[in-house]
Amino acid sequence: MASHLSFGLGPAGSREEQPSHQALSDESRPLVWLQAFWAWGKLIGLCLCTDVRTQLVEQQRCLEQQTEMRVQLLQDLQDFFRKKAEIETEYSRNLEKLAERFMAKTRSTKDHQQYKKDQNLLSPVNCWYLLLNQVRRESKDHATLSDLYLNNVISRLTHISEDSARLLKRSKEIVLQLQEDLMKLLNELYTVMKTYHMYNAEMISAEAKLREAERQEGRVKGVSGTGGGVEPVFGLRIEERHQRRNAARKMEKMREKRKAKYSENKLKTLKARNEYLLTLEATNASVFKYYIHDLPDIIDCCDLGYHSSLSRALRTYLSAELSLEASRRAGLEVLEGAVENLDPARDRQRLLGLYPTAFCPPQRFGFQAHMGDTTNQIASQPQVQAELSLRLTQLQTRLASLKIENEEVRHTNPMRSWS
Amino acid sequence: MASHLSFGLGPAGSREEQPSHQALSDESRPLVWLQAFWAWGKLIGLCLCTDVRTQLVEQQRCLEQQTEMRVQLLQDLQDFFRKKAEIETEYSRNLEKLAERFMAKTRSTKDHQQYKKDQNLLSPVNCWYLLLNQVRRESKDHATLSDLYLNNVISRLTHISEDSARLLKRSKEIVLQLQEDLMKLLNELYTVMKTYHMYNAEMISAEAKLREAERQEGRVKGVSGTGGGVEPVFGLRIEERHQRRNAARKMEKMREKRKAKYSENKLKTLKARNEYLLTLEATNASVFKYYIHDLPDIIDCCDLGYHSSLSRALRTYLSAELSLEASRRAGLEVLEGAVENLDPARDRQRLLGLYPTAFCPPQRFGFQAHMGDTTNQIASQPQVQAELSLRLTQLQTRLASLKIENEEVRHTNPMRSWS
Repeated sequence: MASHLSFGLGPAGSREEQPSHQALSDESRPLVWLQAFWAWGKLIGLCLCTDVRTQLVEQQRCLEQQTEMRVQLLQDLQDFFRKKAEIETEYSRNLEKLAERFMAKTRSTKDHQQYKKDQNLLSPVNCWYLLLNQVRRESKDHATLSDLYLNNVISRLTHISEDSARLLKRSKEIVLQLQEDLMKLLNELYTVMKTYHMYNAEMISAEAKLREAERQEGRVKGVSGTGGGVEPVFGLRIEERHQRRNAARKMEKMREKRKAKYSENKLKTLKARNEYLLTLEATNASVFKYYIHDLPDIIDCCDLGYHSSLSRALRTYLSAELSLEASRRAGLEVLEGAVENLDPARDRQRLLGLYPTAFCPPQRFGFQAHMGDTTNQIASQPQVQAELSLRLTQLQTRLASLKIENEEVRHTNPMRSWS
Repeated sequence: MASHLSFGLGPAGSREEQPSHQALSDESRPLVWLQAFWAWGKLIGLCLCTDVRTQLVEQQRCLEQQTEMRVQLLQDLQDFFRKKAEIETEYSRNLEKLAERFMAKTRSTKDHQQYKKDQNLLSPVNCWYLLLNQVRRESKDHATLSDLYLNNVISRLTHISEDSARLLKRSKEIVLQLQEDLMKLLNELYTVMKTYHMYNAEMISAEAKLREAERQEGRVKGVSGTGGGVEPVFGLRIEERHQRRNAARKMEKMREKRKAKYSENKLKTLKARNEYLLTLEATNASVFKYYIHDLPDIIDCCDLGYHSSLSRALRTYLSAELSLEASRRAGLEVLEGAVENLDPARDRQRLLGLYPTAFCPPQRFGFQAHMGDTTNQIASQPQVQAELSLRLTQLQTRLASLKIENEEVRHTNPMRSWS
C-alpha cells in the first residue's frame, strides 16, 4: 500500500519561484501557503517520514478539534452573557429599589409638592432629585443591557454555533471525499509501480531465457557446422545428421519464441514504465493540489462566516455597552450642571418665598398722639436744648465708635467669602 | 406690651430710593432684600396685623425647619450612598466571580498556554480574553466606586451634617439674642409711650385745674373789686373785706401753684414726647436693621459653607463615576479594536502554526527504478506513439472542459467573499 512507498527528494523548483510577500487575495492564497511551508523548512525532514494516511487522519482530527474549540468558545460566550444578564438584571433591580425607596420618601414632602407645583427647588434638593433620577436611569440602562444580551447577543451566538457544527459536518464530508480520491490515486500509483516492476522483472527473466536459448543454439549450430564440414571424410550416419539438424531447428525456433517473448515483455515494461511515470506526475499534482488548494479551502469552509458573525454579535454587545455609557454620561452631565448651580443666594430667595409671613418686615411704628396732642415732632425748647445737644453728642460719639468696630468685624468676617 | 401697639403707615421713602436690579454683592444684599419685599407688596397688609412676637417665633421655627430638612437631606444622601456602595460591592463581586469562573476554565486550555507563550492567539479567542478582562476591569472599577462612596463621599456628608447642626445652634443663639434686644426696645417704646401719655394726661388735668383756679380767682376778684368800688357808699364791714382779701390771696396762691404744676407737667410731657419720638425712631431703625440686615446674615450663617461643601461631596461622586466611565470606555475601545481585528486569514495561518505536522505537504513522490533500470523518462517509441498521442488529446480535452467548469464554480462560490 501507499505506506510502503518511500519518498524521494523531488525537484523543489515550483517552490523557489514563489515571491516572498504578497497580499492575501484569493489568487495569492496558495503562495502564502507555500511561504508558510518554507518557514517550516526544518519540519520538512519530519514530513519525509510521515505516513500520509496518518497525516490525513490528523488533518480531520485538527478540523474537528478546531470546531470543537469554536463550539466550546461559543458555548462559553453564551453562558457568559447569560450569567452577565442575570448580574445586570439583579444590579438594575437593586438600583431601582434604591431609587424607589428614596423617591417614595421624598414624594410626600413639602419640597416635592413645591417641585410639582413650580419646579422651583432649593438647589441641593434639585441635586438630590437628579441623583435619584440618575440611579433610575442606570437601573433602566442595565435592564436594557440584560435584555439585549438575552434577546440578541445570545441568539446570535447560538446561530453561529449551529452554523459552525453544520459547516464542520459538510467540511468533513468534503475532506473525506477528497482524501478518498487521494488514497485511490496513491493506491493506483502503487499498483502501476508494482506492474512496472513485475513487467520489468519478467522482461529481465525473458532476456535471460533468450540469452540462454541463443547460447544453446550457438552450441548446437557449432556441433552441426563442424560435422557438416567433415561430413564426407568419415561418412557420418545420415540419421545422426538428421537429428542434429532437427535439434538446431528446434533451438532456433525456441530462440525465436524467446525473442518474441522478450520483445513483448520489453514493450509491456515500456508501457508500464510510461504508465508509472504518468501516474507519478498525476499523483504529485493531486497531492500538491490537495495540500495547497483543497486544505485551505476546507479550513475556509469551516470558517465560513464565523468571523463576521462573531464580529456582529460582539459589536451588538459593544454598541449596547457604549449606549449605556452615553446615557450614563448624559445623566452625569445634567447632575454636574445642577451641582454647578448650587447657589446659596438664590436658595435664600427661595426660602423667603416659601415663608413670606415669617420674614416680611413690619411697617414702621407711627407716632401715637395722646388725646388730641398735635405736636408730633421733637420740640427743642430752651429748657431741653442743652440736654438734647448733650445726648446728640453722646450718640454721635457712640455711632462713630460702632462704625469703626463694625468695619473691623466686616473685614475679618468669614461669611464675606460665602455670601 | 408691644403686641398692644398698633402700626401706623410710616414713610416708605427709604424703600423708594432702592434701584430695581443690582448684583448680589455683600453691600447690595439689603437692596435685593427690599426688592423681595416690594414684590410681596400684597402681603404687607397681612404684616400689618401680624404680631411681631409671633413672627419672631416663626422665624426661629423656619430656621430650625430648614436645618432639619437639610440634616434630613444629608442623612438621606448618606443612607443613599451607603446602600449604593453595598449594591456596587455586590455587583463588583458578581462580576469578579463571573470573570474568575471562565478565566479558571480557560487557564488550563492549550490556547491559554499558547497565549502565555507567545501572546499569539486566534482572533476570536483574543476577543474572549479581552471580554473577560473587561468584566474584571468593571468589577475593579465598581469596587473602587463603592470604596469612594464609603470612605470619601459619606464622610464628607457626615461632616456637612455636623457643621449644619453646629451652625444652626450658633445661629439660634444669635437670633435669640437679637430678638431679645428687639423685644427690649419694643418694651421700652411701649414704656416711653405710656409715660408720654401719662404725663400728657397729667398735664391736661393740671391745665384743667389751673383753668378752674383761674376761674375761681376771677370770680373772687370780681366780687372784691365790685365791693371795693362801692366801699364808702354803704359802709361795709371791715371784717368782711378782710375775709375777701384773704380769699383772693389764697386763690392767687392756688393759681400760682397750679400754674407751676401745669408748667412742670408741660415740660415733663415735652420731655416724654421727645423721648417717645426718639425711641420711636430708634425702634424703627432697629426693626429695619433686624429684618433687612440681621435676618439675611443669620440665614447666611446657617448656610455657611453648606453649598460649597455639598458641591465638593457631589463632585467627588461625579468624578468617581466619570473615572469609571472613562475606564470602561477605554476597555471597550480595546475590545472594539480586537473585534475589528477578527481576521479569518490570519487565524488560518495561526492554525497551521499550531499543527505543523498535519498540514505540511509531503515531498514529491520520486521515480522508483526497478533493478537497475536506467530509463526514468517516458519513452516514446514508435510502438506506443499513437496510443500516447491519443491519450494526450483525450487529457487535453478533459482538462479544457474541467477548466471551464472550475471557472464557473469559482464565480458562483460564496466562499469567494469570505476568503
